[in-house]
Amino acid sequence: VDERDTRWLARTLQRMHPADAADLLEALPFDAFSEAVELLGGELPSDILIELRDSYREEAVDVLPDTAVASALDELDSDDATVILEDLEDERRERILEDLEPFDRAQLERGLAYEEESAGRLMQTEFVAVPEYWTVGHAIDHARELGEELPEVFYEIYVIDPAYRLQGIVQLATLMRTPRDVQLSDIMTDPLSDIRTDMDQEEVAFQFQKYSLASAPVKDAAGRLVGMITVDDMVDVIQEEAEEDLFSLLNVSSADGADSVVDTVRARAPWLAVNLVTAFIASGIISLFEGTLNQVVQLAILMPVVAALGGNAGSQGLVVAVRAIAERQLEGDAVRRAILREALSGIVNGLLFAVGVGLVALVWFHDVKLSVVLGTAMLATFLWAAFSGILVPLGLKKLGADPAVASSVFVLTLTDVMAFFSFLGLATLVLL
Amino acid sequence: VDERDTRWLARTLQRMHPADAADLLEALPFDAFSEAVELLGGELPSDILIELRDSYREEAVDVLPDTAVASALDELDSDDATVILEDLEDERRERILEDLEPFDRAQLERGLAYEEESAGRLMQTEFVAVPEYWTVGHAIDHARELGEELPEVFYEIYVIDPAYRLQGIVQLATLMRTPRDVQLSDIMTDPLSDIRTDMDQEEVAFQFQKYSLASAPVKDAAGRLVGMITVDDMVDVIQEEAEEDLFSLLNVSSADGADSVVDTVRARAPWLAVNLVTAFIASGIISLFEGTLNQVVQLAILMPVVAALGGNAGSQGLVVAVRAIAERQLEGDAVRRAILREALSGIVNGLLFAVGVGLVALVWFHDVKLSVVLGTAMLATFLWAAFSGILVPLGLKKLGADPAVASSVFVLTLTDVMAFFSFLGLATLVLL
Repeated sequence: VDERDTRWLARTLQRMHPADAADLLEALPFDAFSEAVELLGGELPSDILIELRDSYREEAVDVLPDTAVASALDELDSDDATVILEDLEDERRERILEDLEPFDRAQLERGLAYEEESAGRLMQTEFVAVPEYWTVGHAIDHARELGEELPEVFYEIYVIDPAYRLQGIVQLATLMRTPRDVQLSDIMTDPLSDIRTDMDQEEVAFQFQKYSLASAPVKDAAGRLVGMITVDDMVDVIQEEAEEDLFSLLNVSSADGADSVVDTVRARAPWLAVNLVTAFIASGIISLFEGTLNQVVQLAILMPVVAALGGNAGSQGLVVAVRAIAERQLEGDAVRRAILREALSGIVNGLLFAVGVGLVALVWFHDVKLSVVLGTAMLATFLWAAFSGILVPLGLKKLGADPAVASSVFVLTLTDVMAFFSFLGLATLVLL
Repeated sequence: VDERDTRWLARTLQRMHPADAADLLEALPFDAFSEAVELLGGELPSDILIELRDSYREEAVDVLPDTAVASALDELDSDDATVILEDLEDERRERILEDLEPFDRAQLERGLAYEEESAGRLMQTEFVAVPEYWTVGHAIDHARELGEELPEVFYEIYVIDPAYRLQGIVQLATLMRTPRDVQLSDIMTDPLSDIRTDMDQEEVAFQFQKYSLASAPVKDAAGRLVGMITVDDMVDVIQEEAEEDLFSLLNVSSADGADSVVDTVRARAPWLAVNLVTAFIASGIISLFEGTLNQVVQLAILMPVVAALGGNAGSQGLVVAVRAIAERQLEGDAVRRAILREALSGIVNGLLFAVGVGLVALVWFHDVKLSVVLGTAMLATFLWAAFSGILVPLGLKKLGADPAVASSVFVLTLTDVMAFFSFLGLATLVLL
């Protein structure tokens, strides 16, 4: 890059797999990366562009000239082209779209019209659909005629009626093992999935996972076949959705991980601000017992123990509950079982750790009363943590809120309040 | 189920997709589920058995008679059969394996010989391999002859030499669009992945994701083609691996989520025990300043604020770092950039929240010195949290440890110690 040897760079990248080439470019310092993309210009293959990570791809699209972006849009499958279009600012997007062929432009504009994170955005409009009276031989001959015009990768063909309504699916593996003269309608199977353009990507991912799909047809509101989603796009969604919940529980926004300090601060400060409020709520509880703390300083030494262990127990239950809700395992009879299990586990762990912390405190301070107060508060906090760990996310779900986003704050505040209140309250009653 | 109408139950289940049938069975109370499986016995289709969630599948395998398990093993693809075999106790496994055909038995025993979570365990030994001098027409005719003997689902065929070494891959989509007389060696492509039987499933998942694969060939140590992994098996692995790291950071074992109280307690108590130790380390730090706390009780009220916010800031950085390491984004120059970004973000957020908590404390206690001490401790803790959030996981990785498992405890203990030490230490210097 330093020597501005564009031709060598372009050749090297073209010889590699796009994913490997993208890795190579990302390994460059960010400035050198921009420079490299600028040098390459229109010679940066579009399949490398799409393999870049978000922040790099956005930078690349920023740096590339309009003509290079337009030709990338032209080469890519429609789902990937939409991703590039999303990166562009409104004005520039308009300008570039105007230069495209009317047909391509209409298709891309339709893709952008679907809501973000919907099946419509994820699907590609390139797929293979054939009428049901065709035979296996007919379908194969047709594919041979089309040759390079077919989508690069597909795993099944769709059998449709004249109104473009899906009648069935024929796996390529089935097509291969069936004699030429068999009619497609005899070997097609019912679609397992039922995906419409406005379906949320989380639901789409769920269907892919449940039915072990490699690809699935997408229908519009009128029931016409309009696109196909392939599993390679869903793999990322499945991972994102699994991470999203857990990120929320860890007070991290899924947008985090960017390269800039401003973005990082912006992603984290709101969670810290919420934490600021809840921390002062806990302080408020402690301040109620100022007099007691003044007389027994050991309480100040031990109270973080109750809060830390209680909070940990609560968040353990919470994590399991939130994932179970996301994977739809907490429905019907399973809810009652889960609440019972959490309560009993809370009692068992509460007893174990009540005795544990009590013994440590006894050895440390040689004060039986103090140890009993500590152990009792620990048990109470564990039980409370067990219930809030499962009831808070279930309650939020019932209210229609996302159980992952707000519940962590709720549960930790609840256990902190309980920890300080029970420990310092009991101490006031017993020790003074 | 109550009416013991086995025949009706078997018929209903058979008409549904196995995944839906499994959902239906799982919706039953656990006892009724066992009873239903017992009633069905050998009539429980093996493809439903494999769709059940772990705890239900284990229960079902426990309840089913040996003959039913043996016939399920016979019907299933080898990767699924291995899953069932894993559920069996050693003695029973031996007994059932002895009743199988010698060939099937040898194949299953070989599958079990691979390490858990390795590519060998994930792969199926059913795949389509053809010699390179064959033409497209030859391959299709061969597939038609085999018909039902072919694997149920496959997306590509493998081209091999006489020693069973992989020469190339032909996508079914490519096979379909190519004229009959073209030789396979002319249309085959180089395999993108390079998977051996002893490769860890995390690495396999990484290759599937990177190259957008639907299936991939698996080679043994000698380079011979021995199996195939399909994306539907990888989808679960990708999700598991994404969750595993984050679960560890949330002090939850990935084995959690079981139905029994004993399992739940066993999964969570170890994390709580570690937390017990770290909590008492924090208490130890506080106890160093017993004298100061005795004189200024407000310190006891405010010290959890410093610890809570500092811990939160540290774990935010930690989560992002651990995921970036897992996704191999923290390599080379990116490490330096990430450390710089975390340090700067720590300073910015530290300043913001130092002023924030300082102001709240000022309004509450009308004590300028106390507020300045609180703010300064907050800033120091944020900076410390920023560095430990990224350097602890990077250090653990360098030492060859899993950065996700132990780092959460380290980081929280480090920030707690810093929070209490800086706040109470500064207070001792300034306020007394």
